[in-house]
Parts: sequence; C-alpha cells; structure tokens
Amino acid sequence: MNVPSGLCVGLDPDVSRIPAHIAEGDKPLQTFLAAIIDSTREFAAAYKINTAFFEQYGRQGIDAMYDVRAHVGNSFCIIDAKRGDIGNTSAAYAVSLFSDLEADAVTVAPYMGSDSVEPFLAFPDKLVYVLALTSNPGSSDFQRILIKGKPLYRTVIETALQWQKAGGLGFVVGANRPSELAELRSAFPEVPFLVPGIGAQGASEAEIIEANDGGPALFNMSRAILYASGGEDFAEKAAFVAGKFRM
Amino acid sequence: MNVPSGLCVGLDPDVSRIPAHIAEGDKPLQTFLAAIIDSTREFAAAYKINTAFFEQYGRQGIDAMYDVRAHVGNSFCIIDAKRGDIGNTSAAYAVSLFSDLEADAVTVAPYMGSDSVEPFLAFPDKLVYVLALTSNPGSSDFQRILIKGKPLYRTVIETALQWQKAGGLGFVVGANRPSELAELRSAFPEVPFLVPGIGAQGASEAEIIEANDGGPALFNMSRAILYASGGEDFAEKAAFVAGKFRM
Repeated sequence: MNVPSGLCVGLDPDVSRIPAHIAEGDKPLQTFLAAIIDSTREFAAAYKINTAFFEQYGRQGIDAMYDVRAHVGNSFCIIDAKRGDIGNTSAAYAVSLFSDLEADAVTVAPYMGSDSVEPFLAFPDKLVYVLALTSNPGSSDFQRILIKGKPLYRTVIETALQWQKAGGLGFVVGANRPSELAELRSAFPEVPFLVPGIGAQGASEAEIIEANDGGPALFNMSRAILYASGGEDFAEKAAFVAGKFRM
Repeated sequence: MNVPSGLCVGLDPDVSRIPAHIAEGDKPLQTFLAAIIDSTREFAAAYKINTAFFEQYGRQGIDAMYDVRAHVGNSFCIIDAKRGDIGNTSAAYAVSLFSDLEADAVTVAPYMGSDSVEPFLAFPDKLVYVLALTSNPGSSDFQRILIKGKPLYRTVIETALQWQKAGGLGFVVGANRPSELAELRSAFPEVPFLVPGIGAQGASEAEIIEANDGGPALFNMSRAILYASGGEDFAEKAAFVAGKFRM
C-alpha cells in the first residue's frame, strides 16, 4: 500500500480561468492540465482529479477527465468524487473509479454508513479517504455536532476504522482550524489524511504542517497553483508556487 | 414546481442481468432501457437514472446515460447521483446534472452542510432530494445516532429546511421501517419524499403507502421492474409489475 505524503496538486479546471491562448484552442482542458502536470511533477506527491469540474462540461469534459488521468500516469492519482450509495451502487462506483479510471485513491462520503464505503475498501492496494471534517463553512452544520461531548467527525473516524477492508483507509481532514487537525493527528498518528484548504482559508501553511506533526498526509492546493498566472507563463508560475511548498 | 407522486422506475442497468438477445447486440443499455421506459410510461410518475450504473461502463456507459436521459423525454427525470462538495464544486455538479443532463430533480448528500447543497437549491423549477434516512443497513451507523434524543436524520431535515432556496426541497426517506416514514410524514406533511427500498427489504408496499399517509412522495422500484423477466418478454413483465403499483 503506497501512502504518499506531501503536496497534492488539485486539478479543478475552469475554462473561464484558463489562459486565453489555450481556452480558444482545441481540447483546452487537456492542454492546460497536461502543462500543469508536466511543470509540477517534481514537486507533487500526488494529483487530485475533481470529477465535478470535468462533468460540468458534459461528455467532452468526461473525455478530458480520462485523458488527464492518462497524463498523470504513474504519479499517485486521487479521484475526488465523494461518491457513496447503497452497497451494490457503491460497488459500481468503485469499478468506475478504481478499475476504469485507474484511481490510486478516492474520496467517499460517509453519511450512508458501512455498506456504502466497504465496496471501495474491498480493493487491495487502493486508498480510500472518507470525509471526516471538511474545510467549507457548512462543515459546522453536521460534522461538528456534539454527541456526548464528541463531534460527529470523530465518531465517523472511529466507526470507519472498524469496517472491513482489504485496502487502505484515510480521512479528509480540513485545516482551516489547525487545532482540530492537531487533535486528530494526536489521536490517530498513523492514519493517512488528505488535507484540503491550504492557502485558501485562514490558517497559514506553516501552522497546518505543524498541526499535522509529521503524520502521513497529502496537502491539497488547487486554484493557487492552477491559476498562479493567467498568462502564457502559467505553467512556470504554477511550478514556482508548487516548489515553495515545504512539508 | 412540478412535484410528482407515485411510482418511480429506477434505471440501474446491469449488463449481466439484461436479456441475452439484447446484451449481445449494439448499445445494450440504450436498447434495454428504452424498451423498459416505453413499456412502463403509463404507470411511471418519474424515472430515476442512477449514475453509478452507467459510470461503471466507462465512457460508453456515460454516452448511454445521455441517450437514456433523452429517451425519458418529458417524463419527470431524477438523476440519482448523491453528489455534494464545497460550494464551487457543488455548483459544477449542479451545472452537470441540471443544465447538461437536464435533470428535473437530483439527490444530494448532506454531510458537508449548507454550502454543499445550496448550489443545487439555487436552480428554480428543479427539485433537490437531500439524503435523510436511507434504506441500507449502514443507515444506522450515523443517521440514527441520537442527539439529545433526536436522530441525526431528523436534524438533517430540520436544518436543510432553513437553507436558501429558489427551487424545491425534498428528502430521501427509506421505508424499511415504516414507523420512521410515518413519523417524518406526520412532522412534515407537505414535504416531498423520495422513498427507496419498496419490495426489496422487509415492509410490504401496502404498509409503506399507509405510512406515507397520502403525502407527496415518489416510491422507487428498480430491480423488481427491470429484471421481472430475463427473457424476451422482459418489457411486458416490467409493465405488469409497474402496473400493479397502487399508491
């Protein structure tokens, strides 16, 4: 089981923010993201394909997702799809993501419980990041609800760690409140975390790295790298931002 | 806002269960589901496309999903995708499902809270079913956790009803325990429910219909209709099963 740590480059294409000389050409998503991948590969421990940003462009976007997946090649590839459904349906999603798109890891939503996640965990040599604590404002609506003094996100982690698995299990842990990341890292020192929200919200990169205390973790940056420049130097600027990351 | 009530025919294609004379032909998903749709249209208040069952067949499967959506035509079409992510990502999913696939309604996962659902609710004349209580075994892992004596699924409903919306809001409410459906229908008499699990688990259709007490609801049946026969009479047998449904 390969569990990389370091920078994860999030591939969230938005045609309206792609440099004009590429957006106006043939296959803009492929051209843009291939250049980003090539320029950042020496700094990236992983890439993360966000399915929504491809699905929004319909069948052409989905074709682009498959092409971009191929371009990621042997670098560690997370497909961030946040799927989750009853057992036979999750099994179909797992086939789509692990077998067809050849993801090394996926993100999965926990709300439907054990049989919605175990079909993903049944794949040996694959890694499943279950959503625990996300970095968005709505994370307080349910994830932080206290149950006998303990937040729901903590219950999600403790419960999921009991589930049947043949592959690896990690969690999405947002970092906009570093104290929460520190608390979870202290409780689960060896569990892989996927940490979104670097740079975008509040806490500094240094605070977040410190809160993780050297545990296995991928720190995702998307827009700060993809759109570091809107000009012809976009790939060079993307590499510059990615190269500054220090775990 | 069109909120249909009655039978929902779930379109969950599984090539291994499609009659052999179709499975061996060209475009089996399209041929099979077009025949199911044609034969059940007089009985179906809605159709529900389950994205997993198309995505598992890769790009050909996704092409089939678009073709099947077109064949559903003006019948009410739910895309059961259970998406949900941070705001800008959910907005991309909403474009994919409502604008590109032209869904009339979608299912959305609640775990990430308000800003993960509101981009779907921003579409006027569309209906969003938020997962509240699902029909699978894992639904007890988190959905039924008691918080000050109240199950989490109830908190999800009460919280979501406060969110900003321009379109319609309903909930997925499983029916394997009719007492829970009855409790929610009594508390929310006018709220649309999407009720999965008819026939498959435990409770009888009559008990479930009674528990709903005449409220606005779609009752989904998938496998019992799609695979009513594995022979050349599959469409006729599907219509027979669909025609027996009485709300």
